[in-house]
Amino acid sequence: MATQKPSIPKGTRDFGPVEMARRNYIFNTIRDVYALYGYRQIETPSMENLSTLMGKYGEEGDKLLFKILNSGDFTRSVSTQQYEEMTAPQLAAKFCEKGLRYDLTVPFARYVVQHREELQMPFKRFQIQPVWRADRPQKGRYREFYQCDADVVGSDSLLNEVELMQIVDEVYHRFGVRVEIKINNRKILTGIAEVLGAADRIVDITVAIDKFDKIGLEGVNKELLEGGLSQEQVDMLQPIITLSGTNADKLATMRQVLATSETGLKGCDEVEFVLGQLTDLRSPISLDLTLARGLNYYTGCIFEVKALDVEIGSINGGGRYDNLTGIFGMPGLSGVGISFGADRIYDVLTQLDLFPKETQGGARLLFINFGEKEAAYCLQLARQTRHAGIPTEVYPDSAKMKKQMQYANALQVPYVALVGEQEMEEGLIALKDMVTGEQLMLTIEEVIGKLAN
Amino acid sequence: MATQKPSIPKGTRDFGPVEMARRNYIFNTIRDVYALYGYRQIETPSMENLSTLMGKYGEEGDKLLFKILNSGDFTRSVSTQQYEEMTAPQLAAKFCEKGLRYDLTVPFARYVVQHREELQMPFKRFQIQPVWRADRPQKGRYREFYQCDADVVGSDSLLNEVELMQIVDEVYHRFGVRVEIKINNRKILTGIAEVLGAADRIVDITVAIDKFDKIGLEGVNKELLEGGLSQEQVDMLQPIITLSGTNADKLATMRQVLATSETGLKGCDEVEFVLGQLTDLRSPISLDLTLARGLNYYTGCIFEVKALDVEIGSINGGGRYDNLTGIFGMPGLSGVGISFGADRIYDVLTQLDLFPKETQGGARLLFINFGEKEAAYCLQLARQTRHAGIPTEVYPDSAKMKKQMQYANALQVPYVALVGEQEMEEGLIALKDMVTGEQLMLTIEEVIGKLAN
Repeated sequence: MATQKPSIPKGTRDFGPVEMARRNYIFNTIRDVYALYGYRQIETPSMENLSTLMGKYGEEGDKLLFKILNSGDFTRSVSTQQYEEMTAPQLAAKFCEKGLRYDLTVPFARYVVQHREELQMPFKRFQIQPVWRADRPQKGRYREFYQCDADVVGSDSLLNEVELMQIVDEVYHRFGVRVEIKINNRKILTGIAEVLGAADRIVDITVAIDKFDKIGLEGVNKELLEGGLSQEQVDMLQPIITLSGTNADKLATMRQVLATSETGLKGCDEVEFVLGQLTDLRSPISLDLTLARGLNYYTGCIFEVKALDVEIGSINGGGRYDNLTGIFGMPGLSGVGISFGADRIYDVLTQLDLFPKETQGGARLLFINFGEKEAAYCLQLARQTRHAGIPTEVYPDSAKMKKQMQYANALQVPYVALVGEQEMEEGLIALKDMVTGEQLMLTIEEVIGKLAN
Repeated sequence: MATQKPSIPKGTRDFGPVEMARRNYIFNTIRDVYALYGYRQIETPSMENLSTLMGKYGEEGDKLLFKILNSGDFTRSVSTQQYEEMTAPQLAAKFCEKGLRYDLTVPFARYVVQHREELQMPFKRFQIQPVWRADRPQKGRYREFYQCDADVVGSDSLLNEVELMQIVDEVYHRFGVRVEIKINNRKILTGIAEVLGAADRIVDITVAIDKFDKIGLEGVNKELLEGGLSQEQVDMLQPIITLSGTNADKLATMRQVLATSETGLKGCDEVEFVLGQLTDLRSPISLDLTLARGLNYYTGCIFEVKALDVEIGSINGGGRYDNLTGIFGMPGLSGVGISFGADRIYDVLTQLDLFPKETQGGARLLFINFGEKEAAYCLQLARQTRHAGIPTEVYPDSAKMKKQMQYANALQVPYVALVGEQEMEEGLIALKDMVTGEQLMLTIEEVIGKLAN
């Protein structure tokens, strides 16, 4: 067989031991907090039927689905003439029945509908799995990446929103990352559009308002007018564009502006309730009307989380949706969820140097191998340290001392045990601290006492 | 959008909360033991270039690879005439550049070669990830399933074999599953073939010997003669077919039979060394010459693990290979590894009812929701129980009591907290034990003391 220079598909990554230990730290932290709030884990298959995935992410999303070629003679149902006449997407639909999951939300909706008989509502689930998108790879954007989602379906209660924000707060507290939570409500945005009589302009409006800090009130007004709003409409928007003060101040202003919109006032109520329950949150949380993510599916509260000490954009988002399962024939099931982006968090923790020291992975103790007899003896000692829960290695070959110490250094093993003939006779272990260089003669019990947590 | 009845591709599975909790118990146990022996985790992408995968699993394996359709206009490089003329596999090679990982071994070999500069040898890695095969789905065989592999490369030492058997022993000890480990050595099989002068018949021979228990010596001899061995060859095989006694007995016999084969004697030495280091293993381990797995790549010791109390075939296997990375241009790197099959272990633990009770997942405490004021109060209490590490839920809606208790029952939440107006005034919690039905009036501190581990 010809020799190949091996590589991996663009946009994908290998994770080595140190990266894995750090990624596991992220996943475990998020998982632990989800579990603490009673969310229960599920997993869905990597492949879904294309009929489940297609049409759920917009036209652009359909293009970004990875499709899996049918096995066997996939050409069976496509004649040469059809091949000539059909477009690539049409042919793909003939050649492929399955695709790789694009996110965790659609598979979750499919799961809920498929297993509705077994599920106890409200159903609180979390899911930590990779997703795949045939996006153009670039810095920080990959074709395979993990999402860490938690959702509740089957409950309208705003307590779910409250708890999800507590979860966000707790997770970043555990990471040691200072974050700011932004909250908005789709109903407030709808209310603004109602009051203005410009239902289809709400995205343009939020985009323009978002530039207030950069281009000032005049600039925003100019943009809104150029965008087709009337002077009267722009006038009505003035208190919204310059909205400031505490959350209570902002809500008071909004209640005035939205006085004629039942929906808008409902949105204010919802935000007020959620904020009212979150007075002891460690992270600042504030109403931000420019937050307009997921407008095509969110129907209530919308959240976004930004790291305060790193320029990296949103590291977390979520919101309430009222008809997730409708596309699969189960209407009227309200849900709310959040999603942590593991890759963004990885970058934040790296930049802020916040990974705990232990997240290197690997052994805490290495027995140097002085030869067959000594190694057999060390294997017995290693059984005892492992029994005490200390990750331990016995160097497998009786290689040169220098090589074995190099190995310990490269893997950042903190302690090395040297047991030669003399130590065997004395029943002692020469334990070297690889950081300080200090070396002690200890019994196996003393070594265990020193290294066990 | 038309309503769809949702389903998942055949051979794939959804894992609900209880299954996930059990699967995590399996993965965590294996991971913990791997880590205790200094193995470090890596992950590789789900997709590999087809050039990495093709030709590594035999012709049958190539057919079982899931191939991913190139994104964009995948038809670009195939004219209508080519479509007419080419076979399905040829067209697949044009339409697809990537495939889903078929096992963890080839991606690991690719990883080692690709990252050779960064790796410290010996490299001890473990990897727990799904693999995909377009096999015909059937009971116990899936198209997506997890493998849990550990391998060392870059060390010839038999101490690696010894430690891998200790790992197997420890993992099943933790599971509470009684297993039997079988060991063989490719060099012994080669030696037998050498002595017989029948190098290409070794598989037929082991298959025939394997039937000794069923069809007896005469039956085996008949089969061997019919298979084309001479009477003289069959005579030479007699001590092997009837091989019995302790491992020492078997090795003594084999040394006689293999006296003229240097390779065969080397194999005996290797097995003797490994067994000699494993005298304190909890699981029985025995030399079994009929063990002939992976003969096309294993070059030294071969292992297999069988559960003693369940009829389920092999639940574990492994062995030494001397040229894993050769196909990627890095010859001469010896390795040895084992693989746990999570699905088989799941079935064994289910059949023997060995999953710990805690592996249900979900909350340990549910606060009943008596209304907005009470719920807000309970949210504060829940903060305290969660802070103490107790997975806690507050029922989000003030639904009927019966419905809330039903929820607790369905999710097997062991404790329910009832905090109404009176309890709020008294600063107490009515804590109901859902198993015994017992109800106690406790302070939050007492609840935490009772439920925290």
